Amino acid sequence: MNRRMILYMPLQILRATALLMLLPAAVSIYYREPCVWSFLICSGGALLLSIPAAKLVKPYTKEIYAKDGFVIVALSWILLSALGALPFTISGEIPSYVDAFFETVSGFTTTGASILTHVESMSRGLLFWRSFTHFLGGMGVIVFVMAITNLSDRPIHIMRAEMPGPIVGKLVPKAKQTAKILYLIYIVLTLTEIALLKIGGMSLFEATVHAFGTAGTGGFGIRSDSIAGYTPFAQWVITVFMMVFGVNFNLYYLILIRNFKTALKSRELWVYCGIFGGSTLLVTLNVLRMFPSFGTALRHAAFQVSSIMTTTGFVTTDYDRWPQLSKTVLLLLMFIGACAGSTAGGLKVSRVIILGKTIHREVTRMLHPRSVRVIRFEGKKLEEAVIHNTAVYFVLYFICVMAGFFLLSIEPLDLESCFTAVVACFNNIGPAFGAAGPASNYAVFSPFSKLVLSAAMLLGRLEIFPLILAFSPTTWMKK
Amino acid sequence: MNRRMILYMPLQILRATALLMLLPAAVSIYYREPCVWSFLICSGGALLLSIPAAKLVKPYTKEIYAKDGFVIVALSWILLSALGALPFTISGEIPSYVDAFFETVSGFTTTGASILTHVESMSRGLLFWRSFTHFLGGMGVIVFVMAITNLSDRPIHIMRAEMPGPIVGKLVPKAKQTAKILYLIYIVLTLTEIALLKIGGMSLFEATVHAFGTAGTGGFGIRSDSIAGYTPFAQWVITVFMMVFGVNFNLYYLILIRNFKTALKSRELWVYCGIFGGSTLLVTLNVLRMFPSFGTALRHAAFQVSSIMTTTGFVTTDYDRWPQLSKTVLLLLMFIGACAGSTAGGLKVSRVIILGKTIHREVTRMLHPRSVRVIRFEGKKLEEAVIHNTAVYFVLYFICVMAGFFLLSIEPLDLESCFTAVVACFNNIGPAFGAAGPASNYAVFSPFSKLVLSAAMLLGRLEIFPLILAFSPTTWMKK
Repeated sequence: MNRRMILYMPLQILRATALLMLLPAAVSIYYREPCVWSFLICSGGALLLSIPAAKLVKPYTKEIYAKDGFVIVALSWILLSALGALPFTISGEIPSYVDAFFETVSGFTTTGASILTHVESMSRGLLFWRSFTHFLGGMGVIVFVMAITNLSDRPIHIMRAEMPGPIVGKLVPKAKQTAKILYLIYIVLTLTEIALLKIGGMSLFEATVHAFGTAGTGGFGIRSDSIAGYTPFAQWVITVFMMVFGVNFNLYYLILIRNFKTALKSRELWVYCGIFGGSTLLVTLNVLRMFPSFGTALRHAAFQVSSIMTTTGFVTTDYDRWPQLSKTVLLLLMFIGACAGSTAGGLKVSRVIILGKTIHREVTRMLHPRSVRVIRFEGKKLEEAVIHNTAVYFVLYFICVMAGFFLLSIEPLDLESCFTAVVACFNNIGPAFGAAGPASNYAVFSPFSKLVLSAAMLLGRLEIFPLILAFSPTTWMKK
Repeated sequence: MNRRMILYMPLQILRATALLMLLPAAVSIYYREPCVWSFLICSGGALLLSIPAAKLVKPYTKEIYAKDGFVIVALSWILLSALGALPFTISGEIPSYVDAFFETVSGFTTTGASILTHVESMSRGLLFWRSFTHFLGGMGVIVFVMAITNLSDRPIHIMRAEMPGPIVGKLVPKAKQTAKILYLIYIVLTLTEIALLKIGGMSLFEATVHAFGTAGTGGFGIRSDSIAGYTPFAQWVITVFMMVFGVNFNLYYLILIRNFKTALKSRELWVYCGIFGGSTLLVTLNVLRMFPSFGTALRHAAFQVSSIMTTTGFVTTDYDRWPQLSKTVLLLLMFIGACAGSTAGGLKVSRVIILGKTIHREVTRMLHPRSVRVIRFEGKKLEEAVIHNTAVYFVLYFICVMAGFFLLSIEPLDLESCFTAVVACFNNIGPAFGAAGPASNYAVFSPFSKLVLSAAMLLGRLEIFPLILAFSPTTWMKK
């Protein structure tokens, strides 16, 4: 274990975040908003503290091990959420620091759950920062820093810990190059969406923040009714782009290098599209009588299914008033999530496929006890360790959800509100049902519950293990 | 695969059930009720049909394989539920056959979910039969038939399929002897409870049906308010006996042969008692202000915790009106259930322990990738196949619950009612929350949902795999 590196890296990430804060500061200057000072104070303060602190723990070697990667990622995410929340409180726009922390964790984890009761009264600089955290958190803050610096000799350990999914591979032999390619694809797709939303009638500011929210599959909007007030064209653009950002980015790389055949053979992609198509059809038929035409029903159904499935959380209508069947479909989609290697949360489609194959093998084993069967996924044989780890992750995932539900039950709210709030935060969706539904927000919860939900968001985004390792005493004990 | 045996055995079980129906017939004669005829018609009809049918498929050999055991158990349970439902419909007391089937499946699977809106108007014979199905289903109908006949050369395959829990062992070298011992312990405990309830003020009839309901951890009562109207002494007796029947019966055998040391070393027993104690304390404190004294609060809390945890489903108060924290505790207990090798449903405490140890090992593996660790449980090394199977079972279990929840969402009911109804049926508890709460019943559901819930009860009682195997086409295909 490289203890110095474990402290050094998060401080470097903090420094990078402090520099990135100059971007919303620039936005504030452009709109002549006083909140620019809060950004400058935070950024300057973080730089002044982190530079000497980093010198103090300067590592002797840059080498890190797999477990170091997990701990670095966990500590970095907590630190940068703590820093990112400060401008909200210093500017006085979110007076409570717990609220600001919740909002920032929700931003970086691309959840999009908000405690703001009147988002329209926020200054543009802070709204930009809020959505920018989605963009940064989506592909991974540390992956971004890795891509542009030489901080570590083993960036793959960091990428494995920060990027979701059962298997994280490299596109090219060097992890740093992989990170660069991924970020390039990410930026190009985001710019394309900004352009299309601009055509769809949004201002450049609106188009940018909504593209950030889509790209990171986050879901922070700048209006209380989210996307409901925009044109059907803009709604369709967002529907499609949410799905686009929910696809495994490796497939875009395959398309870039003109390996269309392998890209189109992806089992995960087809299951993902199949779930989207099936759910949209079912919900459309179920809500048909609530809308004037089939087209409108289809638009709202496709938008909500895409938004929930990719764990974004934008809304165009109050789906909490839909029939229970549609609500159940959406709730189940919250668990599944989108593809591994995308910016989305949830269990991930690939895990669901692997779990399905594992169950099938277990049943076959009962019929033919002596048969030995390997499980293949995306054309490759899966290691037994990955299969077992996927099943164990599922168990751990449910235990975390149930623990969060238990802690939230202290609130004087009903089962639906408590349970779905945890599910929506853990899977990084944002809006839930009931008290935390699309027409409401998370302001109803107590500070204690907000901290529980913040932990749920981080656990969901980092896929549990990094945080367990970072807070397990055995990790820190010297042998 | 021994196809003839797969058909022959369920017919023999049917014949045994037909003979057992003479017991409620005798009760009807004693109380001079006309429903005696419905029992005699069903019993006679079943005998007349099953005896020649069994001759037709008489097997060449009694040898069966593990998978045959699963299929035999699945088919037998469906057949005997279909037969057991007939007296309710023939007598006209439950006119709809779907309702009667639901009630009987609920009985045999020891769920205790009822569609009866006014149980007091039922005849004594049918009430006796209803509770007697709990007693038969608790320890396993087929295990009972195995214990008294020589139907199969390999009764262990049947016992493994019918008795819940991750590992089913034999107490003595012969499986048939094991079944006899288990049933003997079961009967003695039930008789003890009948005696104590009689002392607590119940009539012999009341004491018997309630003891049946406790023994099988079923929960069918004979009053609309379940156990609420009986004396506190009777309520405490039932609280204790529900816990007693939730303990692994192997421990009673160990006590019988005076091996107290091994019995008391059982990890599952202590965790089980710990969960009961902790939950009771938490609920008592949470509901304290709703009751006149600490004693009353403790009695109701202990009763409800014991009832839900052992998946019995008796109630003494409308816990649906308790604060959400207590309701969440009860809901989480529904998933855990009691000990393996008992008459209870749910995941079972032993599985929860094994899952916890599996997660711990997975985290340790991340810290020390090269370490090889075995998992020990109850002093023995667990096979990797059992560990993996336990995790896969958990995944399958949640998929089944979610599928049931999805199908029930077609009902015009809220999330709480649909979700908890499935959870309560799947885990063989009975009363849920909301529309299917303790003050209500399952009459509100449509016939389609009643069939879905019947399937959930059977899947939960038989632990999924037997039914999947019985209905999987590959099982029946000839090589």
